[in-house]
Amino acid sequence: MASVLLFCLFCLASAKAGKILVVPSDGSHWMGIKPLVEELGRRGNQVVVVIPEASLSMGPSQHTTTLTYPVPYTKAQIQDHISASVTNLISTHVSTDLARFQSFINTMDLLSNLITRNVEGLLLNKDLMKKLQDYNFDVILTDPFETVGVIAAEYLSIPTIYIQTSHPCGADTLASQCPSPPSYVPQRLTHFSDRMNLWQRSVNFVRTLIQPMACRRMFTRADEIASRVLQRKTSIMDIMGRAALWFVHSDFALEFPHPLMPNMIIVGGMDNRKAEPLSQELEEFVNGSGEHGFVVFTLGSMVSQLPEAKAREFFEAFRQIPQRVLWRYTGPVPENAPKNVKLMKWLPQNDLLGHPKVRAFVTHGGSHGIYEGICNGVPMVMLPLFGDQGDNAQRLVSRGVAESLTIYDVTSEKLLVALKKVINDKSYKEKMMKLSAIHRDRPIEPLDLAVFWTEFVMRHKGAEHLRPAAHDLNWIQYHSLDVIGFLLLILLTVIFVTVKSCMFCFRKCFKKSQKKKKA
Amino acid sequence: MASVLLFCLFCLASAKAGKILVVPSDGSHWMGIKPLVEELGRRGNQVVVVIPEASLSMGPSQHTTTLTYPVPYTKAQIQDHISASVTNLISTHVSTDLARFQSFINTMDLLSNLITRNVEGLLLNKDLMKKLQDYNFDVILTDPFETVGVIAAEYLSIPTIYIQTSHPCGADTLASQCPSPPSYVPQRLTHFSDRMNLWQRSVNFVRTLIQPMACRRMFTRADEIASRVLQRKTSIMDIMGRAALWFVHSDFALEFPHPLMPNMIIVGGMDNRKAEPLSQELEEFVNGSGEHGFVVFTLGSMVSQLPEAKAREFFEAFRQIPQRVLWRYTGPVPENAPKNVKLMKWLPQNDLLGHPKVRAFVTHGGSHGIYEGICNGVPMVMLPLFGDQGDNAQRLVSRGVAESLTIYDVTSEKLLVALKKVINDKSYKEKMMKLSAIHRDRPIEPLDLAVFWTEFVMRHKGAEHLRPAAHDLNWIQYHSLDVIGFLLLILLTVIFVTVKSCMFCFRKCFKKSQKKKKA
Repeated sequence: MASVLLFCLFCLASAKAGKILVVPSDGSHWMGIKPLVEELGRRGNQVVVVIPEASLSMGPSQHTTTLTYPVPYTKAQIQDHISASVTNLISTHVSTDLARFQSFINTMDLLSNLITRNVEGLLLNKDLMKKLQDYNFDVILTDPFETVGVIAAEYLSIPTIYIQTSHPCGADTLASQCPSPPSYVPQRLTHFSDRMNLWQRSVNFVRTLIQPMACRRMFTRADEIASRVLQRKTSIMDIMGRAALWFVHSDFALEFPHPLMPNMIIVGGMDNRKAEPLSQELEEFVNGSGEHGFVVFTLGSMVSQLPEAKAREFFEAFRQIPQRVLWRYTGPVPENAPKNVKLMKWLPQNDLLGHPKVRAFVTHGGSHGIYEGICNGVPMVMLPLFGDQGDNAQRLVSRGVAESLTIYDVTSEKLLVALKKVINDKSYKEKMMKLSAIHRDRPIEPLDLAVFWTEFVMRHKGAEHLRPAAHDLNWIQYHSLDVIGFLLLILLTVIFVTVKSCMFCFRKCFKKSQKKKKA
Repeated sequence: MASVLLFCLFCLASAKAGKILVVPSDGSHWMGIKPLVEELGRRGNQVVVVIPEASLSMGPSQHTTTLTYPVPYTKAQIQDHISASVTNLISTHVSTDLARFQSFINTMDLLSNLITRNVEGLLLNKDLMKKLQDYNFDVILTDPFETVGVIAAEYLSIPTIYIQTSHPCGADTLASQCPSPPSYVPQRLTHFSDRMNLWQRSVNFVRTLIQPMACRRMFTRADEIASRVLQRKTSIMDIMGRAALWFVHSDFALEFPHPLMPNMIIVGGMDNRKAEPLSQELEEFVNGSGEHGFVVFTLGSMVSQLPEAKAREFFEAFRQIPQRVLWRYTGPVPENAPKNVKLMKWLPQNDLLGHPKVRAFVTHGGSHGIYEGICNGVPMVMLPLFGDQGDNAQRLVSRGVAESLTIYDVTSEKLLVALKKVINDKSYKEKMMKLSAIHRDRPIEPLDLAVFWTEFVMRHKGAEHLRPAAHDLNWIQYHSLDVIGFLLLILLTVIFVTVKSCMFCFRKCFKKSQKKKKA
């Protein structure tokens, strides 16, 4: 323990509050970064969070200053867009690899506009940009999902820390120069495990090959805007390549093991916290079914409604289980809704998942919720909707701690089978408890780790010693193609000279023997 | 801080003393692992260290049980062997890449016998092996440099943690399946930096290609013995591939940034500790030259003598500097040895390097010493002898904190120039202080980190969640060669069918037009 104390003394001696700019992304992305942002403020740093005026879930946070900028859309429009996406999901069946491939390309096109919607709002806002420049920030913490923070960081010339879960086109892997062998590292949105058959490895190989093109497609508009704002030809990928650090919002209790770069810091589960006691009303409800316990059901912060027919399937399934159900739902309710289901506008999710009587968690598989589920050791039934949720579901299923269904064709029968399986088959709970133990057993809490590295970047004005020299190589050099050419040239020259010499000797000898014959 | 407390409570709750077997390697390898071994014992674990009866530096350690086994060599023989190696080094000049390549192959052959010298001593010692089996260890901590621990771990079927600095043939990189792109990750013993020209990248590429063959050559004898002892066809590389964790005895303050695997834990600088006050005699000596300060000179624990002519060069150089010199030296001393040099059998190295008046550290570049030098921020003059010392020197020189000389052609003039440079040119000290700050500024002390992960493996009976699926693939699958073949086959089939269809259509049309003509 002596060395811990010594180290802590050193830390305290060198601890100095700094100025931190935060440019987050909306929805679950903000939920992922918020605990860190607030903790940095709580520890005495001056934290300025810049967000658009209209957003789903972003807003003022504790111990921070929030600045907003106007944007040409409203919160209602975002909500409408999400509702339309869910309706679309429920009516579209993506089941084959080819369909998933097409969906991946479509996603890139869709995101191409979405990720740039805030750029002009912030970067062309001269007053706000001047204000930010005057702050003289020590570091910027931003989500690379939206490019507004990426371009702002470059414009303000501040060391940058990116925090992300899994970038749709794999920009994080590419920009950090992290090797990603396609033979066992499944690409995002493929829903493959790390153990693939020949066909899956072939699909994954092609997906890995086209990854740079997919990013180029996704960043087409953002690249143009970046070049315009920064007044030089540049690209989002180039800017991202200058990152000081990458905070990776995952953990190997969930993620398949894969190579890392030294400037990647694993911080999954930053928001894990102890469950608080429930309100009296909720406590009474969850205890109502005795030892059968209860089930928590939510499709995340963005989706609280379902079309009536789809919702009925859920009500019918819940009617047939002995557990009580707490469901975050604001949609239409059938007349004969089962008594064991309690509908709520908002759920104290972590407190419910930490309750000793919880038996299962029905979830869309957003990373915020699944880490709460893993931390509390609750088996899951997964209904992935979009983004990385399908991959998350696949990872938990492959570990034997969850069952996965698709929202397109989920029926009360399928749901019932899945629920009964994860509740009654003890192996789900046992494996989940092991996963939970691994996830919680870390040398340092992920939140403290993220705070440390943020302050490290401020103390040392970056993390240059962790930046691989790969960034100075072009594509040909990185893959040693020039070396292979050079070595082939040497080899061919050697062969050529050898053959020529042999032929010369042979001719000499042959002439001599002919002369002898003639003689 | 709340989360730290929470976490600590969790740790204490789950902390349980375990049984640890340690099979270390001799010399500086033992110095590197000893602080961890003693700390594990101090924290209440039952630690059993198994060493050969004859060794250079291994012996009983605090809070541990030491067991020995007889070996067919003596300590004097090891010392003679080292002296012969140093004499050989002084008379051999390895300066070109080709010579270094030849030296690399020779090293593999030399080590092939060296690394197996203890295997029979331990593994064929039935009584001792029975005793070890009866202990029922939870984990084995061993240095993969010598194969005795590797085979013992497999024989006893215990989760294994390997601890190493840099394996001569790169067995650690290969066995852990860690990607190592030859374009910017310099191979061991090449003395290249991470920024290589075309020629260096070509040499490095070839060295990376032959790495598996080099390991096979180095482990030829060990593989035979392993197969005999374990009574099945096996190889050291296969066994190493089953490691639970790899403790990497390096730090990116020194090492060039390169990819890592999740089960690689960076623990360089585990033995960093606060400098203690010097004895009165030493304190008086080092203060004797006032503000000029003093120089520390040692060639490591294994080399304390030099041939007379070579030693004279050092004495002559030291005569011409205003600093005092403390030299670990037991060889012949010339009559007119300079007064500012104090010769000692043993130096309190860390205490001297932590003294405010130290100005330079003349060292062979062993990893133990250089981390003490970095930690205390002392510029260095390096005289690498063998193993990874040349690479270490190269790394420090490339960071502008050291000068490097070769023992073969070092003269008093060269030494003088180098010493004056690192002492008088302030940039060496400044850069070293920055490196020192980076090295010491870590979220958790490396010793605590190593203890945590050792106990983690005991708690969870391994670290299976960090093991990449790459281990289940063969060479062809890992490099996606079968996938490339499969995709080529599809491509060729498509081309073939398309061409055939076109030809068929063309012929049809052609026939029709001919018929028409005829008609």
